[in-house]
Amino acid sequence: MIATFYKGNHTFSVVEKQIEAPQDGEVRIKVAYCGVCGTDVHIYHGMMDKRVQMPLTIGHEMSGVIDAIGEGVNGFEIGEKVVVRPLDNRGEKPSDKGFSHICEDLKFIGIDSPGAMQQFWNVPAFTLHKLSSQTDLKLAAMVEPLAVACHDVRMSNLKTGETAVILGGGPIGMLVAMVAKKHGASVILSEINSTRIELARKLGFDVVSPAEVDLVEYVRGKTDNRLADVVFEVAGVQTTLDIMTEIVGIRGRIVIVAIHGQPKPVNLFKFFWKELQLIGARVYEKEDYEEAIQLITENELPFEQMITAVQPLSNIQQVFENIDKNPNGMKILMDCQS
Amino acid sequence: MIATFYKGNHTFSVVEKQIEAPQDGEVRIKVAYCGVCGTDVHIYHGMMDKRVQMPLTIGHEMSGVIDAIGEGVNGFEIGEKVVVRPLDNRGEKPSDKGFSHICEDLKFIGIDSPGAMQQFWNVPAFTLHKLSSQTDLKLAAMVEPLAVACHDVRMSNLKTGETAVILGGGPIGMLVAMVAKKHGASVILSEINSTRIELARKLGFDVVSPAEVDLVEYVRGKTDNRLADVVFEVAGVQTTLDIMTEIVGIRGRIVIVAIHGQPKPVNLFKFFWKELQLIGARVYEKEDYEEAIQLITENELPFEQMITAVQPLSNIQQVFENIDKNPNGMKILMDCQS
Repeated sequence: MIATFYKGNHTFSVVEKQIEAPQDGEVRIKVAYCGVCGTDVHIYHGMMDKRVQMPLTIGHEMSGVIDAIGEGVNGFEIGEKVVVRPLDNRGEKPSDKGFSHICEDLKFIGIDSPGAMQQFWNVPAFTLHKLSSQTDLKLAAMVEPLAVACHDVRMSNLKTGETAVILGGGPIGMLVAMVAKKHGASVILSEINSTRIELARKLGFDVVSPAEVDLVEYVRGKTDNRLADVVFEVAGVQTTLDIMTEIVGIRGRIVIVAIHGQPKPVNLFKFFWKELQLIGARVYEKEDYEEAIQLITENELPFEQMITAVQPLSNIQQVFENIDKNPNGMKILMDCQS
Repeated sequence: MIATFYKGNHTFSVVEKQIEAPQDGEVRIKVAYCGVCGTDVHIYHGMMDKRVQMPLTIGHEMSGVIDAIGEGVNGFEIGEKVVVRPLDNRGEKPSDKGFSHICEDLKFIGIDSPGAMQQFWNVPAFTLHKLSSQTDLKLAAMVEPLAVACHDVRMSNLKTGETAVILGGGPIGMLVAMVAKKHGASVILSEINSTRIELARKLGFDVVSPAEVDLVEYVRGKTDNRLADVVFEVAGVQTTLDIMTEIVGIRGRIVIVAIHGQPKPVNLFKFFWKELQLIGARVYEKEDYEEAIQLITENELPFEQMITAVQPLSNIQQVFENIDKNPNGMKILMDCQS
């Protein structure tokens, strides 16, 4: 089979490798598609070289078919379509209070152990979620990022009729917008990239560029002065941190989706004055995966239009190089079948 | 009667003034005691001169007795003991979503309109809460700051058996500690002032100075590595903002009680990583006043020991001057009866 390895220094190798039998408790998956996540790009840029043990097969946004079943695994059959929830929580401790998805010793599969950017992949059976046989495996490769969006929306406690503002219209921001809308919210998407604005408009969103329009006044006008009930901070820059506390109304909730590597100034006075809540949200839990799978199965949301390109796995080096050249792209899938 | 006025420039005047009849909807209170709040000290320092219309009678932590009743006021009798919830929400709008205690056009009585540092005080009847005839009016002057503490604890959703760390052992921090303990929490108080540490120890609290002990390790040791479930940030300095995200465990809540005038660095990565919540809490609602009144009436908590001194109202200038010289003091009450 073909496997790819991140070797450091902006470099992937593509090698021919022996297919391995699944160990006890594992299942072998014939990988169909694997999406490129922002975290994968982060790894490619060398930003996570301290954490990643090179050479490493990365990739965690995947879909596939069960190809072999190890000892002690029940409830699965060869040929079943599946996705992997790439959280290895076997190090969970009592001090994690049962929040296994963010337990202190969590290992993220595809970062801390080998991932899906290969033709065959052995994973612990407890990470699997089954798909129906009709599920489109291309779309199913988006279950993982969609589950992030489902988790973000669930953590926000968003209610029907509320107004949600999403700051940042990249892949996750767009998926959060879709899920929030599906949950009955009035959604406003804030994005500055004109290609992404165009796509979001095509997908039917109320999109606004804060570089061109006063976002506070815009949200005020759309909400009869109530301002936003929920804000999703997905952009991860200081300007969105500055504006998030301005566009949210009394007792509003702000979900921090973006990863902020350094402490950054936050207007805590506004948190006091308007009794705001800041909510951290990371990865997903079982129920978020289930919701994401249901949404992908129903296929009523414009997931298809999120896919910018599908590339053969062997093109991995070129794909990552091109992502750096094209900040407009949304989701790139690697086809691991060819 | 005697009334006091803040005139700007660190100066109060004490003047003889005509007692006024209450207007329609108002009640006249014979003020018993009025506590000095941090906000009053802030006003004395000139920090709120833009907001305060001088000369102004300040003061909002009070107790007293109904002395006269205006037209259209029902349900009150002369001689009844009362406290005032000093929130004038008559400017409430639909965009305030029913959160009248923090409505956009809220007027805070004693800052935005005349307060209690005078012998007789006319207030809208809707601000009154009745006390039982047995209630100690000295202690009752602490209902207002105690209601702040009740609100903070309620907003934190603190549950029996949880561990709460209070950062800052001033009057509000100490009251939050008392209320949190009353709600069944294990309480750790963090304070650096040795006089306050001594008082807190006398009151039976687990107190630690982060200048002498590694607070993270201390909390870890006390919680079997779970760290704090709830943190109350009452100190309002960068060091407490830095440590609040370290001492709190997975899915922990951090209540911002202190007022932070400027945006300050916050470790948002920890909010993401541990799925923390930051909760802004401001003043109080009706039910917080009711809880505070009940606690003062029961008088099972060491409120008495919170009172550093009781001074005649005419000493107001000297009292404020002395507060600046003595950072160890807790609650100073002005006796408005003499």
